[in-house]
Amino acid sequence: MTVLIIGAGGQIGSAAEVALGSHHEIVGVGRNTNPAVDTTDSDSIRALFETVGQVDAVVVATAAGTLPFRPVTELTADDYREAFEGKVLSQLDVVRIGVAFVKDGGSFTLTSGITAREPVPHGAAAALANGALESFVISAATELPRGIRINIVSPTVLEGSEEFYDAFPGFNHISPAAVGRAFLKSVDGVQTGQIYALDGI
Amino acid sequence: MTVLIIGAGGQIGSAAEVALGSHHEIVGVGRNTNPAVDTTDSDSIRALFETVGQVDAVVVATAAGTLPFRPVTELTADDYREAFEGKVLSQLDVVRIGVAFVKDGGSFTLTSGITAREPVPHGAAAALANGALESFVISAATELPRGIRINIVSPTVLEGSEEFYDAFPGFNHISPAAVGRAFLKSVDGVQTGQIYALDGI
Repeated sequence: MTVLIIGAGGQIGSAAEVALGSHHEIVGVGRNTNPAVDTTDSDSIRALFETVGQVDAVVVATAAGTLPFRPVTELTADDYREAFEGKVLSQLDVVRIGVAFVKDGGSFTLTSGITAREPVPHGAAAALANGALESFVISAATELPRGIRINIVSPTVLEGSEEFYDAFPGFNHISPAAVGRAFLKSVDGVQTGQIYALDGI
Repeated sequence: MTVLIIGAGGQIGSAAEVALGSHHEIVGVGRNTNPAVDTTDSDSIRALFETVGQVDAVVVATAAGTLPFRPVTELTADDYREAFEGKVLSQLDVVRIGVAFVKDGGSFTLTSGITAREPVPHGAAAALANGALESFVISAATELPRGIRINIVSPTVLEGSEEFYDAFPGFNHISPAAVGRAFLKSVDGVQTGQIYALDGI
């Protein structure tokens, strides 16, 4: 299979690449690769797919832009819009534009996060974005054409992502290998419409 | 208690009003009441609260605007934005602006829907909006000040909403009385951060 990984340079993208790269051809892209992609720009996504051509699977392992972390009483409408545009619409655009470039029986795998189901301090905008993505996947899975599947990986903080440890007090961490297995399950498996909730142990 | 019901004229708002009206003072508002409110307009929300003054509970029983129902391969970024602005941001704005007008220990109760967890044909944008709201509530509940609680009622199709029966094939219906009880549980009860999933029987 050919697997396009968007956000290949990040920790989650790397975890996906390690798990999938042993037996698939990986095309790993990001903002600074060649070809590059900016998932907040539809034209950039379209140009990427036209360059890469047909693939068996698409993995989106990145959030474009930043998720604003701020007390819920201070989060503004524009903060929620920023979270929605950066994390949600960017991944949805990859699906909408990319579907024509995914082979029959192929798959999309998106990335959300544990804040969809467990709160963290100042995380309301991140929660909203992750919850939106997960419910979208449940619905989209029933309508994608030609046997194309879609799942979403929803991890807790990754081991080694120490910059996030304080923001997720007491949360379990999860190994990159376990995250990689979730992407493997989605890409090589048969399920669709699944939320792979990785809460750690 | 004084309970402000936004969207009082709709089926869900009416169900809330019946359940809460027997023992609380209800201020029921909508687009065409006096005072009126347009929840897509922050200034209108602020004017409403300044007119109504301090309340014990706020119920949001309405979606402003329309949720676009269309095949997922045809839903555009603007369709998702429309769903997000109309159903999600409008309710979040009520919370953000209204929190200063809710008494200590008061509550917000929002409304989502079963598509957050179960797909319906062409419902990806609705799913996304409902999923966003539910994860938001889980997070926001941990941060509201002065003991203010927040929950969300997530019903299947209401009995009597025959215009939605075909769009939800085989889904259970739920009585307005059961929907009303969920709002009662939120307003009169002690829970916070809860999703009251009403799947019918």
